[in-house]
Amino acid sequence: MAEQPPPPKRWKKLGARLVAHTRIFDVLSVDFHHPARTQPQDFFVIQPPDWVNVVALTPERHLVLVRQFRYGIDDFSVEIPGGVMEPGEDPIATAVRELREETGYVGTSARLLGSVHPNPAIQTNRCHLVLVENARPEAGLDWDPDEEFEIMTRPVDEVYQLAYAGSITHAMVLDALLLFTPVWAKLQANSRANGPV
Amino acid sequence: MAEQPPPPKRWKKLGARLVAHTRIFDVLSVDFHHPARTQPQDFFVIQPPDWVNVVALTPERHLVLVRQFRYGIDDFSVEIPGGVMEPGEDPIATAVRELREETGYVGTSARLLGSVHPNPAIQTNRCHLVLVENARPEAGLDWDPDEEFEIMTRPVDEVYQLAYAGSITHAMVLDALLLFTPVWAKLQANSRANGPV
Repeated sequence: MAEQPPPPKRWKKLGARLVAHTRIFDVLSVDFHHPARTQPQDFFVIQPPDWVNVVALTPERHLVLVRQFRYGIDDFSVEIPGGVMEPGEDPIATAVRELREETGYVGTSARLLGSVHPNPAIQTNRCHLVLVENARPEAGLDWDPDEEFEIMTRPVDEVYQLAYAGSITHAMVLDALLLFTPVWAKLQANSRANGPV
Repeated sequence: MAEQPPPPKRWKKLGARLVAHTRIFDVLSVDFHHPARTQPQDFFVIQPPDWVNVVALTPERHLVLVRQFRYGIDDFSVEIPGGVMEPGEDPIATAVRELREETGYVGTSARLLGSVHPNPAIQTNRCHLVLVENARPEAGLDWDPDEEFEIMTRPVDEVYQLAYAGSITHAMVLDALLLFTPVWAKLQANSRANGPV
């Protein structure tokens, strides 16, 4: 069969109602109206602020990792640094701040690798993935009251192997590694062209 | 500075209280107790069933994509097929079912690429990423009442370019592409060794 149905229609967003308010996200009931239907329908939507995760590359071509206890999965998780965008911040500012606060690492440049939707189906926000280069442990730690991290660095290729092997499971951390792939290939090609760093 | 703080402690999970119940997830308030503190603290946690996304490879080495309207972001999104695990299903069964229902594609084999945590910080569930090979459009479509898809296929390399360019933004779809990377490299190497397919 080679059936191709008509293209999907855009639902029109009508009103929204707050179902639950928490410190880190709101839950809304949002009414959407399909153009071919008589009645609107409600869908539940999670509304957090935007988030940022940081690929921090050291001069030795390692990535900065943090291991921390995560309440959602009730277990430890190995991740790259990251956090919530504060009002007035752009993703680069959040990345530089979170990297410094969580790990003490400070880089010489920062740029956006890309932005993803943590869950387009039920969640409104985006997660921005930022590359910081020449990251060195130069600042003091500045953790929030509920934060504790083990800070480590690993060679880039080893981090990809941890991801493939299932030892890094945080969806947005894996996204950062995917979007870093072509950048890392280019950095390696430049190194080869210019000789050892 | 080379400060290395003591390793992060495991918080002990105490009771949980239902804050909101929706058709697709619950919101819980969960009490956790840090071993060095006198008082427990509550954290909000989203509890959905596990999810599955499907990397469906056609005999022509294309991937099956779906474009659909997503209520969370109030916009269209290009993704790989996927859905919610039903009670009693394993990830492979869900993958095969969702691929068939959403797109009509049926493969000859299916295997797990890996499992990720959509958000270890605030969410309990996992998303399983499954590879289906030799996927062909052989079945009729079987959409849920609120589903409409545009079904398409694109060469694997083009799908990675869509991801790098920001045209695919769904976090777990990008995870699937990351975990498919080493498998795809091996499939290509095998093809080269065996001549054209």
